[in-house]
Amino acid sequence: MDIEKVNSMGFGEFVDVFGNVIERCPLIAAAVWSKRPFSGLGDLEKHFFAFIDGLPLSGQEGVLRCHPELAGRQPQCGRHSAESQREQSAAGLQNLGAAERLRFTELTAQYRTRFGFPFVLAVRLSDPAAAPRELARRLRCPPAQELRTALGEVKKICHLRLADLLGEQP
Amino acid sequence: MDIEKVNSMGFGEFVDVFGNVIERCPLIAAAVWSKRPFSGLGDLEKHFFAFIDGLPLSGQEGVLRCHPELAGRQPQCGRHSAESQREQSAAGLQNLGAAERLRFTELTAQYRTRFGFPFVLAVRLSDPAAAPRELARRLRCPPAQELRTALGEVKKICHLRLADLLGEQP
Repeated sequence: MDIEKVNSMGFGEFVDVFGNVIERCPLIAAAVWSKRPFSGLGDLEKHFFAFIDGLPLSGQEGVLRCHPELAGRQPQCGRHSAESQREQSAAGLQNLGAAERLRFTELTAQYRTRFGFPFVLAVRLSDPAAAPRELARRLRCPPAQELRTALGEVKKICHLRLADLLGEQP
Repeated sequence: MDIEKVNSMGFGEFVDVFGNVIERCPLIAAAVWSKRPFSGLGDLEKHFFAFIDGLPLSGQEGVLRCHPELAGRQPQCGRHSAESQREQSAAGLQNLGAAERLRFTELTAQYRTRFGFPFVLAVRLSDPAAAPRELARRLRCPPAQELRTALGEVKKICHLRLADLLGEQP
């Protein structure tokens, strides 16, 4: 799909195609449609990022809360998008051993309690061994810093999904 | 469900329960969770409305673009929520005659082109005969005024859905 095709879309098609580049936030794609035409992938993603950056704190936390728990309980219908399942599967997180999975689940629960949003990681850019280490490290960060880090992961995931949809190298 | 129950929810449960009181915008419920505890229905909905009012213009248009077309083409999976289907069905819009439906579909297409978002109406508060008249009237309004009217309908729908979930009279 090239950028001319993207620029020709009505809002219904645009939201159908790009509605989940920010996990479970079709509102953001629907808002970004107002900014067309786009000159390319970089321009398109710039508008997604600017929308997130312009949200109040509660809205930025809200974006994070729309993400599924990594390697948590069995995915339920409507909680994990197809993209999210593919990404987690490719990262090997669903192959953690029983003890590793239990430890990971405990730490994600601590993370949720501490920060008020789930642990978000662009798992396609990690290896399976790195995710538990990264979780343990981020769990100790100050909340304001961790919010910025987590939104940075949201943007990496957005970039990868947009590149997939446009058929470009990420 | 009483307000103590609502205030005891973690964000995951809160988003599962309230994620569609603004159609296909779980981000908004996820943001509103930051504002707990809530004193009652009026307080809860005040935070949903304040979030919408605080969005930039593109975001407010985005909220509207997440709504399905009224009585348009056959509902597709993922385009109409269960709530939306129930509401449209109760309003009798799916029982329009062939000629009425064609005319209604033509006017909704004109509306989309003129305003850049779909025609949104709190159909539970209308009768089937009123929706086509209301559509024809709103189609002639200035865009800034129509945006306010449409967001007002979003808030009415939100109020009705919240009242349903809390088991209160709307």
